[in-house]
Amino acid sequence: MKGRIAMLSPVAWRTPPRHYGAWETVAGNIAEGLVKSGWDVTLFATGDSITGARLHAVIDRGYEEDRSIDPKVAECLHIAEVFEHAAEFDLIHSHYDFMALAYTRLVTTPVLTTVHGFSSAQIMPVYNKYRDGNFVSISNSDRAPGLNYLATVYNGIDLSLYPLRARGGEALVFLGRIHPDKGAHLAIDVALRTGLPLLIAGIVQDRAYFNDHVEPHLNATIRYIGPVDAAGKNELFAQARALLHLNTIPERFGLVLAEANAAGVPVIAMDLGSCREVIEDGKTGFLVNGVDEAVLALQRVHEIDREACRARVQRCFSIETMVAGYEQVYRAIFERKATG
Amino acid sequence: MKGRIAMLSPVAWRTPPRHYGAWETVAGNIAEGLVKSGWDVTLFATGDSITGARLHAVIDRGYEEDRSIDPKVAECLHIAEVFEHAAEFDLIHSHYDFMALAYTRLVTTPVLTTVHGFSSAQIMPVYNKYRDGNFVSISNSDRAPGLNYLATVYNGIDLSLYPLRARGGEALVFLGRIHPDKGAHLAIDVALRTGLPLLIAGIVQDRAYFNDHVEPHLNATIRYIGPVDAAGKNELFAQARALLHLNTIPERFGLVLAEANAAGVPVIAMDLGSCREVIEDGKTGFLVNGVDEAVLALQRVHEIDREACRARVQRCFSIETMVAGYEQVYRAIFERKATG
Repeated sequence: MKGRIAMLSPVAWRTPPRHYGAWETVAGNIAEGLVKSGWDVTLFATGDSITGARLHAVIDRGYEEDRSIDPKVAECLHIAEVFEHAAEFDLIHSHYDFMALAYTRLVTTPVLTTVHGFSSAQIMPVYNKYRDGNFVSISNSDRAPGLNYLATVYNGIDLSLYPLRARGGEALVFLGRIHPDKGAHLAIDVALRTGLPLLIAGIVQDRAYFNDHVEPHLNATIRYIGPVDAAGKNELFAQARALLHLNTIPERFGLVLAEANAAGVPVIAMDLGSCREVIEDGKTGFLVNGVDEAVLALQRVHEIDREACRARVQRCFSIETMVAGYEQVYRAIFERKATG
Repeated sequence: MKGRIAMLSPVAWRTPPRHYGAWETVAGNIAEGLVKSGWDVTLFATGDSITGARLHAVIDRGYEEDRSIDPKVAECLHIAEVFEHAAEFDLIHSHYDFMALAYTRLVTTPVLTTVHGFSSAQIMPVYNKYRDGNFVSISNSDRAPGLNYLATVYNGIDLSLYPLRARGGEALVFLGRIHPDKGAHLAIDVALRTGLPLLIAGIVQDRAYFNDHVEPHLNATIRYIGPVDAAGKNELFAQARALLHLNTIPERFGLVLAEANAAGVPVIAMDLGSCREVIEDGKTGFLVNGVDEAVLALQRVHEIDREACRARVQRCFSIETMVAGYEQVYRAIFERKATG
């Protein structure tokens, strides 16, 4: 037994989520990987979660999936629960937003926070107060100055969910939240410019944006197919010439880029934020600075070696690599505690 | 020195608030009263608060007064701060909503929560989890089953702010949030039925309600004068024949009833919730069950002895009475801790 870990997943969605929910996906993947590696892991998540770890739940269902739940109430009960059990663990690994930081000084168990994203400038005062805590960034680009980062640990995916496909299809694929940040409208521009079919999948997070910038362009060639699970993603990957990820704000990590690459699908991504860390330009896809460059890059996708795409994901973005990264961070925390 | 008390006020508004803010008003009044009574009191409140206690602030201004602040961030930082300093106090007296309860099991300092109101059924799971804590209700009517109530302690007001007026005026006065719960529309019905002038004061909390049910009736006789402070309330009391408080949901306490009575103003209140505890029917006003009964009661307001109104407030709803009530609760907690 390597040690007792409390893994604090969010409770917006089930862990792992049915469709959307990157934070829950990653928390779940780490829990699974740690269990395989011999750790004693308790996953604090929604009651309908599925895990190889011990499940500890006080919230039955995700507050995004059951609107009768007040999110603030769910958060209070869920976060307090893990800290009330702190003495039973060697480490609390939080995937929660800033709210969990506010409890960290009330327990002696060390707390590690993976920062999955800074949702707004307004939350930074909380990070600033607790900046001496233990933090992991999910990419080198997504760091806030002044926080005590112990490492960058890239998110890892379950490669068995996304088998390598020797060849793709003709379509462009967009996979992500329908929100201006993710640039579905730019993917549509590329489709209109090239005449290539475009398949758009993901939850609609910004309804006005969908109505104004996506829906008017839908036709037999540009299709919106709703949110998809892993099986749905694989169906899209089978039809994909390339994944188009023309994000308009810095990406924090970009799980879907790794998922597409795992299936052998080249990725054309905006050179903003972490995309440069996930995609190797010219090897697993192309980094571009706008629609013009994306159109040009599409002429070169045949240069991408699909097996090289998967090999890079296996090496850099597998659950095993991620878990090894976290194990190193845990050990650093334990050693510091033992000597401090 | 009687002991070290941390008084946790909300940070929606300044303590004491400029206009609206019953929870902050009461927390501030208790802090002032305890200081006078010889306690060592630290008030956790906004940085612009005014207090005779020691002020401990991490939030500069109330989140209702400065929209650049994320309320959840302010709450996190503010609540965590008092619990991180728990060891410096003999008791934490929380006037916060359910969020503070989630920290109570992480410290050994006893926590007393005054429940100023259950804002919705959705928050009850938090109270249920922490039901074995220490609770005070602000009226006998506003209690949730199963909570460990140590006492009812009525809210106390600073009587010096509301001097007794030997006589009032001709107007009906409505004082409260402009929201269906507080029944401004029923006060307007009474004014229309009797032809008496009506002065309406308070913050507009429900704009649609104001637009649809208040504004259309405003004229030279029925006037809306906006939010008022203590001076503004006294101007209204000077013109008042009676205070009309025709609440449509159970009142939790009703500070304004005590304030009006302190000035000698008879109160006509709906017989719902705590009104029956604050108003002595036939002595300091009348309890009614609707507009018809309110109209009838107005014919009898001359029977109310204005000095008796003030005397009852002095006896039951003064800061001194409230503080004596809380001192008794504190002692019970200290004794239980000493023997437990």
